[in-house]
Amino acid sequence: MFYTDLSKEELETLKSELTLKYNDCKEKKLNLNMSRGKPAPDQVAVSFPVLNEIGMDSDLHAEDGTDCTNYGGLEGLSEARKMFADILSTTSDNVLVMGNSSLNIMFDQVSRGFTHGYNGNKPWYTYNKIKFLCPVPGYDRHFKVTEHFGIEMVNIPMNEDGPDMDMVEELVSSDDTVKGMWCVPKFSNPTGITYSEKVIDRLASLKPAAPDFRVFYDNAYCVHDLYEKTIELPDIIKKCKDAGNPDLVFEFSSTSKITFPGAGIACIASSESNLKEIKDHLKVQTIGHDKLNQLRHVRYFKNADGVRDHMKKHALFIRPKFEVVLEGLEKELAGTGAGKWTTPAGGYFISFDTLPGCASRVYELCKDAGVVLTGAGATFPYGKDPENSNLRIAPTYPTVDELKEATYVFALAVKIACIEKLLG
Amino acid sequence: MFYTDLSKEELETLKSELTLKYNDCKEKKLNLNMSRGKPAPDQVAVSFPVLNEIGMDSDLHAEDGTDCTNYGGLEGLSEARKMFADILSTTSDNVLVMGNSSLNIMFDQVSRGFTHGYNGNKPWYTYNKIKFLCPVPGYDRHFKVTEHFGIEMVNIPMNEDGPDMDMVEELVSSDDTVKGMWCVPKFSNPTGITYSEKVIDRLASLKPAAPDFRVFYDNAYCVHDLYEKTIELPDIIKKCKDAGNPDLVFEFSSTSKITFPGAGIACIASSESNLKEIKDHLKVQTIGHDKLNQLRHVRYFKNADGVRDHMKKHALFIRPKFEVVLEGLEKELAGTGAGKWTTPAGGYFISFDTLPGCASRVYELCKDAGVVLTGAGATFPYGKDPENSNLRIAPTYPTVDELKEATYVFALAVKIACIEKLLG
Repeated sequence: MFYTDLSKEELETLKSELTLKYNDCKEKKLNLNMSRGKPAPDQVAVSFPVLNEIGMDSDLHAEDGTDCTNYGGLEGLSEARKMFADILSTTSDNVLVMGNSSLNIMFDQVSRGFTHGYNGNKPWYTYNKIKFLCPVPGYDRHFKVTEHFGIEMVNIPMNEDGPDMDMVEELVSSDDTVKGMWCVPKFSNPTGITYSEKVIDRLASLKPAAPDFRVFYDNAYCVHDLYEKTIELPDIIKKCKDAGNPDLVFEFSSTSKITFPGAGIACIASSESNLKEIKDHLKVQTIGHDKLNQLRHVRYFKNADGVRDHMKKHALFIRPKFEVVLEGLEKELAGTGAGKWTTPAGGYFISFDTLPGCASRVYELCKDAGVVLTGAGATFPYGKDPENSNLRIAPTYPTVDELKEATYVFALAVKIACIEKLLG
Repeated sequence: MFYTDLSKEELETLKSELTLKYNDCKEKKLNLNMSRGKPAPDQVAVSFPVLNEIGMDSDLHAEDGTDCTNYGGLEGLSEARKMFADILSTTSDNVLVMGNSSLNIMFDQVSRGFTHGYNGNKPWYTYNKIKFLCPVPGYDRHFKVTEHFGIEMVNIPMNEDGPDMDMVEELVSSDDTVKGMWCVPKFSNPTGITYSEKVIDRLASLKPAAPDFRVFYDNAYCVHDLYEKTIELPDIIKKCKDAGNPDLVFEFSSTSKITFPGAGIACIASSESNLKEIKDHLKVQTIGHDKLNQLRHVRYFKNADGVRDHMKKHALFIRPKFEVVLEGLEKELAGTGAGKWTTPAGGYFISFDTLPGCASRVYELCKDAGVVLTGAGATFPYGKDPENSNLRIAPTYPTVDELKEATYVFALAVKIACIEKLLG
């Protein structure tokens, strides 16, 4: 039954029933958490063998003879560059492998725009105002980086196939203070949406008014498929080059959700010209990245196929978790009109939209019943969801049983908030 | 014989003799390098057991239960903070342990001054000009960081007990565009000089005109003594606090020359108020640092005593190398007046001063005879040694035999350059 079809009396009655159930849940003093976008301990353990790959008796030289135990090198080990290049469907020359955090690489890249500017263009600090385009809902950490540098963020609606490219093209080509755009092209955080090839082509073919406009293309979930049938994105760097925009994109990735969150390796991929500029900064910034951790990783995986095989082990843990949440939502909410949600085939999140105005109420109801969600609004720049409707569900950390219970509470909260809203 | 006491004829004769010897050396087609401030492979190998400290069957939780294989934590493991705190004679609350590069921490800290400013003071990019004080000769990488951000560098002469504090006090107290000062308080790069307690007291008691003036105190060689009799510096952070300057200093250190150059762990130490501000930046900048590498290190060392014991193993490799160079210099150059040099009891460098105007000539003569030195001028801001007299000798990477030969060539080059200068 569609809640909007119900009479006031029917809604009141339903609300009473749901509230009884909700209070029962509350009495259980639950302590559940669907806010953490990180793998569960048993899932992380599939990567523990990586730690045994190098030890005191290992040859600690890379394939080209580089001594990984001493200073030297800003590009990353050549075999690590090859591995990331294959994962990203690009070539080694377009990849630098760095430290443990792709977010840190993104931060540094924005920071370089701010302090020095790209490619001879003036530094962003010299502007009164610059802007970044932010497909929404999106990743709060991206938005925090741009906010940190005082960059104005412009919301771009997400469609089924990626960001609203009509709007993106219009803004990028007409406004030279638009300097960047955040993208998560595959299994986007939090919607799980993957950009269509058409959208990627349009991104690569943008005609920016600003010569220093860049697409910050966070390919965090490039191999994070849950099912046999995987999605392979085209090489955005080649597409940009072919479109006459060789320097348009900075692509990022990491093994944070392949091996160890916080102790993996990360990379940036871009044109050779952009990478040269980045290396000029790196020469000043650091004595180099941790080559031993790079070595540990490439010795374990051997190559991109090794990574893809490894991701199948992760999928065995995550798939049932996504499915139990999606089944619960379907069972409890299908046909009510109280909300809609995405059904991702990979990544780490499910995105849920309540009726406008209900997200913060759902968050509160869940919290009061012992179910922690990511705060309402977190998926929007400045933490402000103009519709107050989006919630991000992170199913990977709790157990399947916990998720079943948490989803039930969540659905109750959604229904109650919806009815409250309809009753006005 | 003091070369300045010799007649023109005597100098000409001596020059001929030395040139014959120099040409003999040249014919050997040597390939020696005294430019690299890094440990030799056999020395690094003493740290290889660190790599075996954690593996797939280890408990990968820190003492407080933190799961080191997953996200979380911006302060570093508490046991790693304790270890660095002890090494730096300070307390854990004053320490954050981060990634693999203390240079990167310093860069970020300067960058934060530039983009955001410290403690509510305006960002440095808003100034037409700001300045850093640079004791010279000093560490080229420090100077490159300040140059990168367009900060004007002011040379400060180094005395036997540290920088010329009369000059430092005068400049810091009278000029509010002086925002920072680089220091390497123990076994300074390249002089090997250790600051006296008096100098450290005067640093801590500075009365800066600028509220956001900071001492960038790179304690890179805090436990890098070569002899039994070690030097322990006082806790600069406490001294600053006691002097009413709690936020004056950012102290840095790392295990780059304790375990693995490029794959160790590094820290910043400062007041709790400064660290809070740093953590506010880190929250935006990174998902955290590599806790597994921190765990590997603290499991191996246990505590600061473990570090100190480990450093004795390093000293066994480095001590004979410093000694063979110093003996060679003494044997070949004592009494000639052709140069003077430092005799450090630790660290990685020996500093050599030729007669004014001769350093680049010595560099060239050495290079032509197959002995690579760090470029003349490298130890000064902008690569400009106003006296053209300082050269940095890095004795740790070559073997003892290579150093013996290289020092002989170096001394020949010094003598020839000196005579050339005296002959005018």
